[in-house]
Amino acid sequence: MQFPEHILHGGDYNPEQWDDATIDADLTALEAAGINALTLNVFGWADLQPAPDTFAFDRLDVLLDRVHARGFGVILATPTAALPPWLATEEPSTMRVDFEGRRHGFGQRHHFCPTSPVFREQAQQIAGLLAHRYHGHPALLAWHIGNEYGGACYCENCVAEFRRWLLRTHGGLGNLNHDWCTQIWSHRFTHADQIPAPNALTEHWGGPYRSGFPIITLEYKRFMTEQFAACLEGEIEQIRHFDAVHPVTTNLMGAYEHLDYFRFASGLDVVAWDNYPRAIRAWPEMAFNHSLMRAVGRGRPMWLMEQAPVATTCRDVNPTRAPGVLRRWSLQALAQGADTVLHFQMRSAPAGSEMWFGGVLDHRGRTDTRTYRETARLGRELSQLDDLVGSRVEAQAAVLMDWDSWWYSRLVDGFSDHWDLVDQARQWHEALARHLGGVDVTDGRSDLSRYRIVVAPSLYMAHNDVIDALRRYVADGGILLTGPMSFAADATGRVLVDDRVDELLGCQVEERDAQEPGFGVELTLPDGTTDTAHHLFEILRPTGGQTAGHWRSSWFAGGSAIIRNAFGRGTVIRLGALLSQAGRRRLIASLIGPAPGHPLVGELEHVSRTCSRGTFDILLNHDQTPLAWTPPVQGVDLLTGRESPAGEPLTIPAGDVIVLRRT
Amino acid sequence: MQFPEHILHGGDYNPEQWDDATIDADLTALEAAGINALTLNVFGWADLQPAPDTFAFDRLDVLLDRVHARGFGVILATPTAALPPWLATEEPSTMRVDFEGRRHGFGQRHHFCPTSPVFREQAQQIAGLLAHRYHGHPALLAWHIGNEYGGACYCENCVAEFRRWLLRTHGGLGNLNHDWCTQIWSHRFTHADQIPAPNALTEHWGGPYRSGFPIITLEYKRFMTEQFAACLEGEIEQIRHFDAVHPVTTNLMGAYEHLDYFRFASGLDVVAWDNYPRAIRAWPEMAFNHSLMRAVGRGRPMWLMEQAPVATTCRDVNPTRAPGVLRRWSLQALAQGADTVLHFQMRSAPAGSEMWFGGVLDHRGRTDTRTYRETARLGRELSQLDDLVGSRVEAQAAVLMDWDSWWYSRLVDGFSDHWDLVDQARQWHEALARHLGGVDVTDGRSDLSRYRIVVAPSLYMAHNDVIDALRRYVADGGILLTGPMSFAADATGRVLVDDRVDELLGCQVEERDAQEPGFGVELTLPDGTTDTAHHLFEILRPTGGQTAGHWRSSWFAGGSAIIRNAFGRGTVIRLGALLSQAGRRRLIASLIGPAPGHPLVGELEHVSRTCSRGTFDILLNHDQTPLAWTPPVQGVDLLTGRESPAGEPLTIPAGDVIVLRRT
Amino acid sequence: MQFPEHILHGGDYNPEQWDDATIDADLTALEAAGINALTLNVFGWADLQPAPDTFAFDRLDVLLDRVHARGFGVILATPTAALPPWLATEEPSTMRVDFEGRRHGFGQRHHFCPTSPVFREQAQQIAGLLAHRYHGHPALLAWHIGNEYGGACYCENCVAEFRRWLLRTHGGLGNLNHDWCTQIWSHRFTHADQIPAPNALTEHWGGPYRSGFPIITLEYKRFMTEQFAACLEGEIEQIRHFDAVHPVTTNLMGAYEHLDYFRFASGLDVVAWDNYPRAIRAWPEMAFNHSLMRAVGRGRPMWLMEQAPVATTCRDVNPTRAPGVLRRWSLQALAQGADTVLHFQMRSAPAGSEMWFGGVLDHRGRTDTRTYRETARLGRELSQLDDLVGSRVEAQAAVLMDWDSWWYSRLVDGFSDHWDLVDQARQWHEALARHLGGVDVTDGRSDLSRYRIVVAPSLYMAHNDVIDALRRYVADGGILLTGPMSFAADATGRVLVDDRVDELLGCQVEERDAQEPGFGVELTLPDGTTDTAHHLFEILRPTGGQTAGHWRSSWFAGGSAIIRNAFGRGTVIRLGALLSQAGRRRLIASLIGPAPGHPLVGELEHVSRTCSRGTFDILLNHDQTPLAWTPPVQGVDLLTGRESPAGEPLTIPAGDVIVLRRT
Repeated sequence: MQFPEHILHGGDYNPEQWDDATIDADLTALEAAGINALTLNVFGWADLQPAPDTFAFDRLDVLLDRVHARGFGVILATPTAALPPWLATEEPSTMRVDFEGRRHGFGQRHHFCPTSPVFREQAQQIAGLLAHRYHGHPALLAWHIGNEYGGACYCENCVAEFRRWLLRTHGGLGNLNHDWCTQIWSHRFTHADQIPAPNALTEHWGGPYRSGFPIITLEYKRFMTEQFAACLEGEIEQIRHFDAVHPVTTNLMGAYEHLDYFRFASGLDVVAWDNYPRAIRAWPEMAFNHSLMRAVGRGRPMWLMEQAPVATTCRDVNPTRAPGVLRRWSLQALAQGADTVLHFQMRSAPAGSEMWFGGVLDHRGRTDTRTYRETARLGRELSQLDDLVGSRVEAQAAVLMDWDSWWYSRLVDGFSDHWDLVDQARQWHEALARHLGGVDVTDGRSDLSRYRIVVAPSLYMAHNDVIDALRRYVADGGILLTGPMSFAADATGRVLVDDRVDELLGCQVEERDAQEPGFGVELTLPDGTTDTAHHLFEILRPTGGQTAGHWRSSWFAGGSAIIRNAFGRGTVIRLGALLSQAGRRRLIASLIGPAPGHPLVGELEHVSRTCSRGTFDILLNHDQTPLAWTPPVQGVDLLTGRESPAGEPLTIPAGDVIVLRRT
Repeated sequence: MQFPEHILHGGDYNPEQWDDATIDADLTALEAAGINALTLNVFGWADLQPAPDTFAFDRLDVLLDRVHARGFGVILATPTAALPPWLATEEPSTMRVDFEGRRHGFGQRHHFCPTSPVFREQAQQIAGLLAHRYHGHPALLAWHIGNEYGGACYCENCVAEFRRWLLRTHGGLGNLNHDWCTQIWSHRFTHADQIPAPNALTEHWGGPYRSGFPIITLEYKRFMTEQFAACLEGEIEQIRHFDAVHPVTTNLMGAYEHLDYFRFASGLDVVAWDNYPRAIRAWPEMAFNHSLMRAVGRGRPMWLMEQAPVATTCRDVNPTRAPGVLRRWSLQALAQGADTVLHFQMRSAPAGSEMWFGGVLDHRGRTDTRTYRETARLGRELSQLDDLVGSRVEAQAAVLMDWDSWWYSRLVDGFSDHWDLVDQARQWHEALARHLGGVDVTDGRSDLSRYRIVVAPSLYMAHNDVIDALRRYVADGGILLTGPMSFAADATGRVLVDDRVDELLGCQVEERDAQEPGFGVELTLPDGTTDTAHHLFEILRPTGGQTAGHWRSSWFAGGSAIIRNAFGRGTVIRLGALLSQAGRRRLIASLIGPAPGHPLVGELEHVSRTCSRGTFDILLNHDQTPLAWTPPVQGVDLLTGRESPAGEPLTIPAGDVIVLRRT
Repeated sequence: MQFPEHILHGGDYNPEQWDDATIDADLTALEAAGINALTLNVFGWADLQPAPDTFAFDRLDVLLDRVHARGFGVILATPTAALPPWLATEEPSTMRVDFEGRRHGFGQRHHFCPTSPVFREQAQQIAGLLAHRYHGHPALLAWHIGNEYGGACYCENCVAEFRRWLLRTHGGLGNLNHDWCTQIWSHRFTHADQIPAPNALTEHWGGPYRSGFPIITLEYKRFMTEQFAACLEGEIEQIRHFDAVHPVTTNLMGAYEHLDYFRFASGLDVVAWDNYPRAIRAWPEMAFNHSLMRAVGRGRPMWLMEQAPVATTCRDVNPTRAPGVLRRWSLQALAQGADTVLHFQMRSAPAGSEMWFGGVLDHRGRTDTRTYRETARLGRELSQLDDLVGSRVEAQAAVLMDWDSWWYSRLVDGFSDHWDLVDQARQWHEALARHLGGVDVTDGRSDLSRYRIVVAPSLYMAHNDVIDALRRYVADGGILLTGPMSFAADATGRVLVDDRVDELLGCQVEERDAQEPGFGVELTLPDGTTDTAHHLFEILRPTGGQTAGHWRSSWFAGGSAIIRNAFGRGTVIRLGALLSQAGRRRLIASLIGPAPGHPLVGELEHVSRTCSRGTFDILLNHDQTPLAWTPPVQGVDLLTGRESPAGEPLTIPAGDVIVLRRT
């Protein structure tokens, strides 16, 4: 497999939208901005295949030669994320049936039914033709399959496949009835054809997270994940017939709800993702998502495949990146393990629903804009950072996050709807990062032994292999911190009652309470300080462990809120509360000492990457004021050449970034 | 008819969810908690009838014998609230078409079409088979038909039946056109098949309460009520072939919007209901609902069929019952006329959408939990209260509440959507209770002569028989208090202009105004104090009555807000305002003196029940502090044996309950 | 064409709802209130045509004679806004398919498919029969086609017509692909049948304003406008066969989103509209809508066809008109160019969804109500104002508002959803009115040379002819003020990059930012004062123009917020900010001096109408306190006969109106 040895800088380009003179001017401008990689052909299907048996590659031939001649590498997309109109209308079964049970007609994109045999055949055909034609093209850097896989389909064909999949994965209808407890609410199936698609016309009331039968919806999500993975892998297989050299990827979307990326993306050579943060205070969200994407890639470097150089369009408010933000966020991606900085897109589209989605070049193609200037500066800086390529992020802590738990915590009614598992994971990730710098995400199936601490904010659905892994991790000396609703259900969705878990945690849940969002309940933390919890309150019963924090208000005042349990050579902290962010930080501080150079102050982010070429400390000041940091070892800033002695405080200007190579 | 002579204590149990050892342990634990009645088989259809012509009663046979052997009585359910998958899928017409016109597939529960001939035949068959098999079983206490009837269906068959029903109830299409004023908006029907199902695809815009033709939707609600009643009664009939001895009921849901319980439940031997309050300050809501359920049962004792011993699951926030709440709410049910205390459920389900719905026994079956201990204490106390069984609640006041008015007030556009008829009824019920203790609900068709005062907060749709009854009641000396939008429409939905009403009220509505929710308008009450009204403001025109309160602000300042009219030997108060709760209390105080031992202080509730075995004063302190009450007559607390002399203040501890037998 | 020479006073009457005696009493009461015109037959289709080949005009014959005998004129409606049930059910294709793709059944009104050949034929038939029968009736004043045209249909027939319309208007599929940039997202159509109806099942996600392909939805709106116009014009043609004398109109709805009235209403003899304001401070909204309706009628007098004499019903809160409001709003309509004051309706309906919609006569037909008295006073006053009939509103300023811009600004994603183009237009209209009195609305296609200033708050989609007109206007000495997102797209929906526009504005947009609703950014205005802008912030780049205002906060502080450009003999102000209302007023004040008698104080409104019979200054005090106004010329109040000398301050009492004829 041939991975690029320098940082890819560039992104999506859609030259089919302009004339030749414009393209020429664009390429000149992009080259001058240090752009070296273009993503092409993402939505080109209708142009490449104007009719079932007609193909038109000429324009793409010319284009590839042209960009190659100008020195750009190409990430070549299979155009299968948007069907050509003729296919969608001649073969309506290629289009999805939605959650409301309605077959959609042609329109938008990301609209194909993932089980449609016609779609799969057509998608694989065009992927194969592209691979056959271009696998040897000198511009080729990598393959980009489809685009932002996601959503779900509820058509007859999907349901039929779902039934077959269930019989196969459960070992027959008898087992399925047992696994799903179908004696509840008269659901015992006597034939697989009785199993419904779990949507608004069958099991759901009040939307996708109010279900009369949550386990069937969870299984449908697992099934959909596998179907989309099969689409992806079907195309990869076509490419691999011709090309064993170039990496293949597709663009993921961070903590995207509808696909379990740990299952979906296992066949990728490199994980790539699109970073469009939603939070106003975006950097902790992005840090978490970068870490999650690394986790999906099993710790390998990943690719930033898309980010907005200016502004997005699909939200109700779409702020523009203020000066310096594009640079800092790009360097954050590098810090968090990316080997590329790719933007969406090189030039703003002239029309369509995303016509205000800002590009490196605006609608006039100007090079005297702030965005262009900032991109060009970034291009120069990235060229100084190629030594980071292939290095790995160092992490002494991990946050456990898995889709089954996320899904099931939302699908099963009860207690409070006003907390979110991923939000909890993000908050713990940020709290840990302040103490330890780089923080991994894990699904519990990676090697945990490397971590000083693993935080599982809510391992709602605990699979046996993960329980085993956590027991081993703690027994061998690890610290496990776990929170409310963890170990709530087993892999079949039943309430988990398991001695191995009780033994690990040293406690059981005695009672749970839930209260309206504004209602806080006080508790003591192990360090004796007080915090205020919200939404969900567990009164714990020690069964071997020691109470390390008490509830201090409400009717359960005096009850155990935190249990500390010695298990093997390690320690488990079971938390019955959703803490404040300050509370999380204090709890971590009481459990582990900070890493060298930590805890960080203000909005400072610190991550280290390491490889055979060295170890790099990247410091990002996301604050509006200068922040100090004291390097524990000597280093030199790759961007400025300035040396920084160990132990001597460094000042990082507001918004600035330092990339120290340890010397 | 053979009614239990002791208080039933117990509730739903689903032994099909566990193995024999667990069931044995459960029964031991339940017996020790004073549980004496189990509701079985509520969702057992798929297990009892695995195929159209296959029945499997063995497990239920064994179970009934087993629980009988342990001394439990059984409330045996017909399992018709949830179809078996084979029935729903082989006969899609048994499933509902929703308000959006979509036929649903198998899923959830409470999903059957009430007019489906196949459903009715199948439901009656299984009900008949159960009655035939178990009517003589010694454990049998009562029959429980289906579960929580409700909702609506809009399928072709329902619409066809609706048309026939309309022709029959209106006496032909000509009368229907006249009754419905179909000359409005070109709605004159020339054939019954032109009459639509009133749903989102025909008459409705903006949801179920925005209709282009409100009367058709009202009639559809009446029709649906009758169809569900026919389902219920069809099963009852099957049972009565074999069993004339055991009472038959089904579980109602308090002020449930979609069925007119006065029509629906007339065939029940005893009214039973499920008490899941929504309000944070829940006791007044529950007091109202208990009273409403008594009213549906025409004053007879009713059964509390379900309540949550721990927490519900279907809301966005589901608080757990704090210590003592389960006991107090259970005793409130007794106070308000229940002869049973039944919980949902005996043991928490191992899976499903309600797996966090707390049971008397938790998922581990523990007996060392707070909930178990509280249930066991309750069981002991209930065994001391059997003398209350069969007694009737004493009430000197009634609140008029009827479904036609509720429906029509929501269906007809105009003025303000920000008030609710049932909410008004609840508020008046609470205000009256503070002055008079037990307060009834009436639909205006019960004997009113027993009441000192009848409050009709909004008799929006006034049927002639109710107008007549109110005229008689007042003429004979009663006090009628009625509020905004009362007597607004007649039974066919037309604006009511009726001299008999004008004469009764002594006034007409001169003008009505509505304002945004935050906007208050001041008025004077008959006692000279001032109150602030919201939402809806009627300027009244005296036509025989006297102005007893004036508007004091807004452009109608000086207008009449309250009219007092002498009619026969009685008095009518017509209120043009939605008062504050303090205003309601002051108005009542100015109309009638308090009953002995009244007005109550704080969050104290007092209800008396009476029968040949005595009269019982139940005092419930819903407050966080002790409250005093002075018994007008001597009594003894059945729970503690403590005597309380007449006229000597008693202190009821915070959260506590006293059950005095008058001596 | 024969237009009434006196002010029409009256409105909708539905005598089919009552018996003869009631009608007689009503007519007597109405006559006494100065009512002279009745709108009849708006929803009479089912009565007039009870079966496909059966017609029943007798009742209408009698009615017309009867009202004529009592001296009333008649605005006779074609009843085509609500199909008879038999037509809707026998020909389901006459009913609409909604945005969700669902065919509706009979119900409500305004439910016909505008492309249905059966509907069009039937509608034209009944219109023709009415015209044939009644064109010579002496009571006839005018024809009223259908009612409140609007909405949209997405049925197969509409889509087929849409495809034909597209091929015709674009000149074939090749041009269409080019115009629509279908290379984006693989949308290149190879056959017209691939073009979808742009609805929730195809291009839309998240409702009608979240589209994957905004231009197709814009075009569908243009297409729908033309189809409704064709329905309207088809009926007009039938009437013109028999009647060339009486004016034909239909009732528009002000700034109604779904029809481009400039296209839709071009065939009307007089523009008429229904005035149901939504704002609590309603008069500026009404002033804008009156002006817009005048614009649709190309400056001719228009008719107020409906207004609520008491209260509406379709909102969640429906306040009643306080004393004097009906009079003031009616006279405002006259001031703003209406020649009629017509109410909905003469008598409140006895039933139906609008039964609480207040009439001049209430449900009892009383004449001793406030509403009746106010109507009668109004009738007397209107009879003194007949000299205004036919006069035209004087305006020195215009606000540019067009539907293409409105639609496209909502359809295209990006920046902020929290501003609305029409809301901006209204605000500018009000700000201008304070300085100049009467303010016109224009679509840019009327004669602009008459205006001192034209404000185009957001000419989002700039057609070439409008660009040309604005260039001519400014070159000839006009002042053009234009705001954010103006000149954003061309007529095909592409981002507009056009030297002629750059030259006109003297600037380009350098960057745009958007922020959450609460976030304000300061800027300086040309007069040196400071204002705070919200939502959307443009940083402008002068290309010939001069910076006339700077941003003062946020990261773009120091950037240009306002550009002033000299173009020909005129001036263009390009504003990059959505100003506060105070800021708008200050900006206008700095650009132009006030007209004589201006600026106005408080909530005072002033409009002048002029014709050969004189010039009339109407002053409306919408405030709660008296307001002063100094007439620049001598006049006499037509209502009181009081003379007012030039230059001498007049006091207009709170809520009062003065109609001065200049003398």
